Amino acid sequence: MKNKQVLRFGLPKGSLQEATIDKMAKAGFNISVSNRSYIPYVDDEEMEVRMIRAQEISRYVEHGYLDCGITGHDWIEENGSKVHQVGEFQFSKATRQPTRWVLAVPEDSEIKSVKDLQGKRIATEVVNLTRKYLRQHKVKAEVEFSWGATEVKAPELVDAIVEITETGSSLRANKLRIVDTLLYSTPRLIANHASWKDGWKRRKLETLALLLRGALEAEAKVGLKMNIARKNLANLLQTLPALRNPTVSSLSQEGWVAVETIIDEHIVRELIPALKAAGAEGIIEYPLNKVVY
Amino acid sequence: MKNKQVLRFGLPKGSLQEATIDKMAKAGFNISVSNRSYIPYVDDEEMEVRMIRAQEISRYVEHGYLDCGITGHDWIEENGSKVHQVGEFQFSKATRQPTRWVLAVPEDSEIKSVKDLQGKRIATEVVNLTRKYLRQHKVKAEVEFSWGATEVKAPELVDAIVEITETGSSLRANKLRIVDTLLYSTPRLIANHASWKDGWKRRKLETLALLLRGALEAEAKVGLKMNIARKNLANLLQTLPALRNPTVSSLSQEGWVAVETIIDEHIVRELIPALKAAGAEGIIEYPLNKVVY
Amino acid sequence: MKNKQVLRFGLPKGSLQEATIDKMAKAGFNISVSNRSYIPYVDDEEMEVRMIRAQEISRYVEHGYLDCGITGHDWIEENGSKVHQVGEFQFSKATRQPTRWVLAVPEDSEIKSVKDLQGKRIATEVVNLTRKYLRQHKVKAEVEFSWGATEVKAPELVDAIVEITETGSSLRANKLRIVDTLLYSTPRLIANHASWKDGWKRRKLETLALLLRGALEAEAKVGLKMNIARKNLANLLQTLPALRNPTVSSLSQEGWVAVETIIDEHIVRELIPALKAAGAEGIIEYPLNKVVY
Amino acid sequence: MKNKQVLRFGLPKGSLQEATIDKMAKAGFNISVSNRSYIPYVDDEEMEVRMIRAQEISRYVEHGYLDCGITGHDWIEENGSKVHQVGEFQFSKATRQPTRWVLAVPEDSEIKSVKDLQGKRIATEVVNLTRKYLRQHKVKAEVEFSWGATEVKAPELVDAIVEITETGSSLRANKLRIVDTLLYSTPRLIANHASWKDGWKRRKLETLALLLRGALEAEAKVGLKMNIARKNLANLLQTLPALRNPTVSSLSQEGWVAVETIIDEHIVRELIPALKAAGAEGIIEYPLNKVVY
Amino acid sequence: MKNKQVLRFGLPKGSLQEATIDKMAKAGFNISVSNRSYIPYVDDEEMEVRMIRAQEISRYVEHGYLDCGITGHDWIEENGSKVHQVGEFQFSKATRQPTRWVLAVPEDSEIKSVKDLQGKRIATEVVNLTRKYLRQHKVKAEVEFSWGATEVKAPELVDAIVEITETGSSLRANKLRIVDTLLYSTPRLIANHASWKDGWKRRKLETLALLLRGALEAEAKVGLKMNIARKNLANLLQTLPALRNPTVSSLSQEGWVAVETIIDEHIVRELIPALKAAGAEGIIEYPLNKVVY
Amino acid sequence: MKNKQVLRFGLPKGSLQEATIDKMAKAGFNISVSNRSYIPYVDDEEMEVRMIRAQEISRYVEHGYLDCGITGHDWIEENGSKVHQVGEFQFSKATRQPTRWVLAVPEDSEIKSVKDLQGKRIATEVVNLTRKYLRQHKVKAEVEFSWGATEVKAPELVDAIVEITETGSSLRANKLRIVDTLLYSTPRLIANHASWKDGWKRRKLETLALLLRGALEAEAKVGLKMNIARKNLANLLQTLPALRNPTVSSLSQEGWVAVETIIDEHIVRELIPALKAAGAEGIIEYPLNKVVY
Repeated sequence: MKNKQVLRFGLPKGSLQEATIDKMAKAGFNISVSNRSYIPYVDDEEMEVRMIRAQEISRYVEHGYLDCGITGHDWIEENGSKVHQVGEFQFSKATRQPTRWVLAVPEDSEIKSVKDLQGKRIATEVVNLTRKYLRQHKVKAEVEFSWGATEVKAPELVDAIVEITETGSSLRANKLRIVDTLLYSTPRLIANHASWKDGWKRRKLETLALLLRGALEAEAKVGLKMNIARKNLANLLQTLPALRNPTVSSLSQEGWVAVETIIDEHIVRELIPALKAAGAEGIIEYPLNKVVY
Repeated sequence: MKNKQVLRFGLPKGSLQEATIDKMAKAGFNISVSNRSYIPYVDDEEMEVRMIRAQEISRYVEHGYLDCGITGHDWIEENGSKVHQVGEFQFSKATRQPTRWVLAVPEDSEIKSVKDLQGKRIATEVVNLTRKYLRQHKVKAEVEFSWGATEVKAPELVDAIVEITETGSSLRANKLRIVDTLLYSTPRLIANHASWKDGWKRRKLETLALLLRGALEAEAKVGLKMNIARKNLANLLQTLPALRNPTVSSLSQEGWVAVETIIDEHIVRELIPALKAAGAEGIIEYPLNKVVY
Repeated sequence: MKNKQVLRFGLPKGSLQEATIDKMAKAGFNISVSNRSYIPYVDDEEMEVRMIRAQEISRYVEHGYLDCGITGHDWIEENGSKVHQVGEFQFSKATRQPTRWVLAVPEDSEIKSVKDLQGKRIATEVVNLTRKYLRQHKVKAEVEFSWGATEVKAPELVDAIVEITETGSSLRANKLRIVDTLLYSTPRLIANHASWKDGWKRRKLETLALLLRGALEAEAKVGLKMNIARKNLANLLQTLPALRNPTVSSLSQEGWVAVETIIDEHIVRELIPALKAAGAEGIIEYPLNKVVY
Repeated sequence: MKNKQVLRFGLPKGSLQEATIDKMAKAGFNISVSNRSYIPYVDDEEMEVRMIRAQEISRYVEHGYLDCGITGHDWIEENGSKVHQVGEFQFSKATRQPTRWVLAVPEDSEIKSVKDLQGKRIATEVVNLTRKYLRQHKVKAEVEFSWGATEVKAPELVDAIVEITETGSSLRANKLRIVDTLLYSTPRLIANHASWKDGWKRRKLETLALLLRGALEAEAKVGLKMNIARKNLANLLQTLPALRNPTVSSLSQEGWVAVETIIDEHIVRELIPALKAAGAEGIIEYPLNKVVY
Repeated sequence: MKNKQVLRFGLPKGSLQEATIDKMAKAGFNISVSNRSYIPYVDDEEMEVRMIRAQEISRYVEHGYLDCGITGHDWIEENGSKVHQVGEFQFSKATRQPTRWVLAVPEDSEIKSVKDLQGKRIATEVVNLTRKYLRQHKVKAEVEFSWGATEVKAPELVDAIVEITETGSSLRANKLRIVDTLLYSTPRLIANHASWKDGWKRRKLETLALLLRGALEAEAKVGLKMNIARKNLANLLQTLPALRNPTVSSLSQEGWVAVETIIDEHIVRELIPALKAAGAEGIIEYPLNKVVY
Repeated sequence: MKNKQVLRFGLPKGSLQEATIDKMAKAGFNISVSNRSYIPYVDDEEMEVRMIRAQEISRYVEHGYLDCGITGHDWIEENGSKVHQVGEFQFSKATRQPTRWVLAVPEDSEIKSVKDLQGKRIATEVVNLTRKYLRQHKVKAEVEFSWGATEVKAPELVDAIVEITETGSSLRANKLRIVDTLLYSTPRLIANHASWKDGWKRRKLETLALLLRGALEAEAKVGLKMNIARKNLANLLQTLPALRNPTVSSLSQEGWVAVETIIDEHIVRELIPALKAAGAEGIIEYPLNKVVY
């Protein structure tokens, strides 16, 4: 009985840990990690959290030791784990660049495409993804597992590397050139197939996905309010399609309305000058916790 | 003259310091602590702040060295301080568990209730509270002051401890079992009795309490807005009593209204799925700074 | 062509760095500084950011190595840089005290005014500002460049110092007395004169200034909402001029209106008690990201 | 059987912890403290180490929970513990000033001697020592336990403090004046009286004391070697009594001897110029691990 | 030409890095690692140092990218690297316990020996060593690579682990029981087979091994000097065989000799009481930098 | 009277602070710096220490605010200070490379010698040294004061830099090429000319210089002892002139002698193999605290 009422949930330990716990809190689940235990406290009696390396989560979800977990698409693929994907999220608000695994070589390397890797030596943390990529391109090369600091290995120790990057700035600082992209990756909420078939767990997971998505949407969006003379409203809405589906409410002041909407934060910097030009006044932008359509 | 115009205010130094200064800022009072002085800067000329150990604040408020202070109910009781209690607050948003002092023993101890303490040895930071508790249960036992790390003392050095806990996870990690709870504690705004009788100081304190409460309420609450077809509104409000007393305003779009309310953040995770089911659209949750009813 | 499309932008490295990057993010520009490079990533292809000491930014803007930058009024003056000033901002929300360079002497020094500096020795980081100040007062004194820790130099090594301060608490801790203020300083967005004449760069700069100002305004302001019986509204607005130009909207509840406005955060602590007294209910304060009038 | 073969040893946790573990290592006992346990590893199967607050060690040694421990003379006195004192050590090499508890008052206080404390209020961590001191001087004053930051309490919260100091520089920085010294304190190796009567434990303790003393002696001493013409030897030894009991050995070089001795490190700075003046050549100073007379 | 004159040397990056650089300095080679480069500075023009993960060094030495390196016996075995072993060292002075990889299970597990692993699941960082061990015992079990925090995985995620330990205290803290030891490991100086055949490189390597061994020997040893009456000397040497082969020199003082020897530091704590008993006086222990027999 | 008996001594604050205090301790003067005061404690009543930026020490010594100080030759030259130089030391044992100020340009710059700087722009912290260097080479160029991070300024903001370096690795990491060396610098003990003429101060300074030199010599040197058959001694000493002036003493063992000497640590790595080849046995190297010839 009791068993059915608990969802065992794996979260990524390490570099993503703080960000993930922060997102969970925004979704409404407060988790506190003690340094004495790998079992954190969560303020939901129907949930048990485990902190596990991102690289391993999909493995333990697949085998049923965990009902579900958050991990990257990359490690699900690298492990070849058979799991149900409940949701996809985009965590990195800072750069708005996708996380991706790229094939990189020294700037002055003669390697210009995957074909030039024939007979070469490649270091990477994602050995399986790299081997699959080489097979697809019918290239034979030696792939070795890198325990870290992969970026400094070429050209002295290996000919090329397959490494993760967002903005490419670390690769550039190491004088490496990107040759190709193997995989784009985003965080995923995954579930064990049996857990997904269990009614109670599935509802719990769907709610979790809904709230997480609501919290993540809210990170990339903002609320925008402004006042405008009613006569200018039509023009405003026509010229600024970004203001999709705004809430328009009358003000006590004759002939003026308040316009309120939710928009992507990253277009605000272009939108505000345009709003002013269209006659909007008293524009305010405010933060959001969750956005659920 | 000058004296009457300044409120001398004690805030807890140490582990609660950062949280308290943060709450004060949310209430509208910016405090900056220099590492060169125990007198912090506060942006209110009518206030003087002193950083003092939580254990000692009630003592100095009682004796009139401070007009008022924020400290825990536990230390007011431990010190037996005669002070006026202006307000009670709940600081710990993270776990939503009350802070409490508990009697704990090793998991495999034979001590099952307070009665079994007869003739035993107990270590604690709250010697007076523990002695009072034993007297109430007519148990004679030796109580010794613990300078810290109380949790590792049982069973080697003492038979039982009285220790503070929220989630109990640190006790569990030390293989201790909770036998009883002596006291639940929350932060209190307290005042010296004479200061409370002074008209100017009392008004200042009441405003302070109002603003602090407003800021703390706001931490545990969020704003929620949504659009719904007017025909579904009655049903929505009826089935979801949590939406108490919402603001309903008409939208320009025929037949639709905007519903806005303030609710406890911790019920959002159950509420949002229900709202969607009831026909709400464009649900957004936003953060609050203060809530004053 | 390419050149015209990129704005080279200097931001202050060091103690102001984190605050400035935070403000830029609030304005809508995400910057991430790697510890491997002095060229940070910015999520705007039309901008290139350089992290440079605040003391040097105006120099490189004047000479055209940078199109624009954010730096203090103090260092523009100290360097005597000929630059266009696009905007002035007030960064320090914490103390609400202006940053200023003051002439300070030991508490028990005989120096009471600038005139008493004749023949004395002064240590400062702003040698040019200090010399200009002395010339203005027709005082001859020796001014020496201080590499740091200026505050501990008087009286042993020098007779007086010219040092930066906000609340004066560090000066007091060093038993120094303020004699005079040489300069109040705020952060400025400055531009190279040629860049300002370039149409594309100027529009970019004006938008940047608009967004930065909007973000900074929002830091010092909050949104305030409340409900009030319509019959009490006139009285509320009359007695509380701080509620300038509020948005008043009807509620479904007969005879009640919602009042919403944007106000300075630092008056909230006086305003809320007054609002309650005037009959306002359900007062909530919420944070803002940007305010553009 | 097993019991008799293990010595349970309490070491001070906290600010003295690192120094004590370092001294123990110099004495030949390697201790490694894990952050997961209060029972450290020690490379001696006949010893079990417990890390306990210095304030509490004498209490647990007295009651027999520990066989022995290292703690300060001050806390033995404060606790009034009846224990056997095996040895006294001087840990602080840095300042060569004794640690002492002093009565201190604000610089401009009217309190000039203990007699002036009549009816005053004193804050201290050593309540018992302070009360005993007052009784001895037939002074009645209120003594309150200070949880920390005692030095900033006078004059605002109390009239005087009893605080620990070495060089007095922290007191001076807080503008406090020393009125009297209550107690000089040094670290002691103490034993439970029953443990001391146990033959095996006593031998173990005596060896431990011998080795610790040897290690501590060595910290304050150095080896000194030099060559000198035999004809100058008598004069050297006569004029420099600090060179007590040197080892003199012949060198192959005709007419020259090597002189070697162990001396207090702190006199080296006066000795070396004198040695050169007396004709010594090739003077070298070398460090010592242990010195056992 | 140039090639022959440089030895490319791999040192372990990460947790062993500081200790290894410290040992190299004691051997006479100063290395300084910049945080900007993976190529550290070394004060020997005939050497080039690379900082590489301990797990990978043997692989790059085997393939000739490095001439030699310092790494653990465990990783040489795990990688199955074919390299020349120049020397074996014992780094951990603190615990004097060998580093070893052990099979561990939860305290209350039914697994009592390797045979009980049949059909179970094991997590480890040394997948190859574990598989080999299972083959030797003709046990079939699933072995999975652990990316870290292996100790918390049993019993929830796996049935057993193979993990590294010195004192076993971390295993005990996680309530794990050691079932068997797979491998004892010590640091090794290894060389590429071709480099070892090169005369110049071999001599360089032999000198390096000699100096490193000398430095490491010195860490575990101390110098001991004492004076004794000549008549007691024979007895002293006979009863204390640990004083093997001492240097005995005459003192000017009639009938006395100085005895000096090098001994293992960890026997000093037993030796010194015995020396005193045998009549030795003025015993001093001093530290050593290198010991070369 | 009192005045004459105290030596006011300036030590460099900041990056060299810890190293300098360490050297002073080795010379026999224990200094402890509190974070509350710029006046550290020193265990010599005849000395008062002040912590001051290295850049400023020579200025305050010249003007008599300090009697003496330790600072670099570079800053004495940059400030053009007229001071007495008591001693020169070599602090950096780690790299055994002199500290030097170099002219550096981007790797691909066209600047190949100082002559190519005509009309260029140079950033540096040593403006006076750079201008003097340019005058000597009859080159006119703009020299600007750099507040820090000088290495990243070329080529974007300036054409060349004058920067401090030891191994050049930071310059290489920034892709800069060294064109010329302006100045080699070592730490100096300097004195005010009047203080040097004062008999008491001069003796104090000479002793200080003697002890500091003794301590610094000892850092770069080690003691070496070995046993050798007397018949091999002559050959040993002849073939190894580095063993200059050893102490040779007879051993009780017939036909053997002990040889002891002090040598530069950095030649030990070449010497030890040679000693073994010459028949030395039981070679030990030990550390020294001071070496005074």
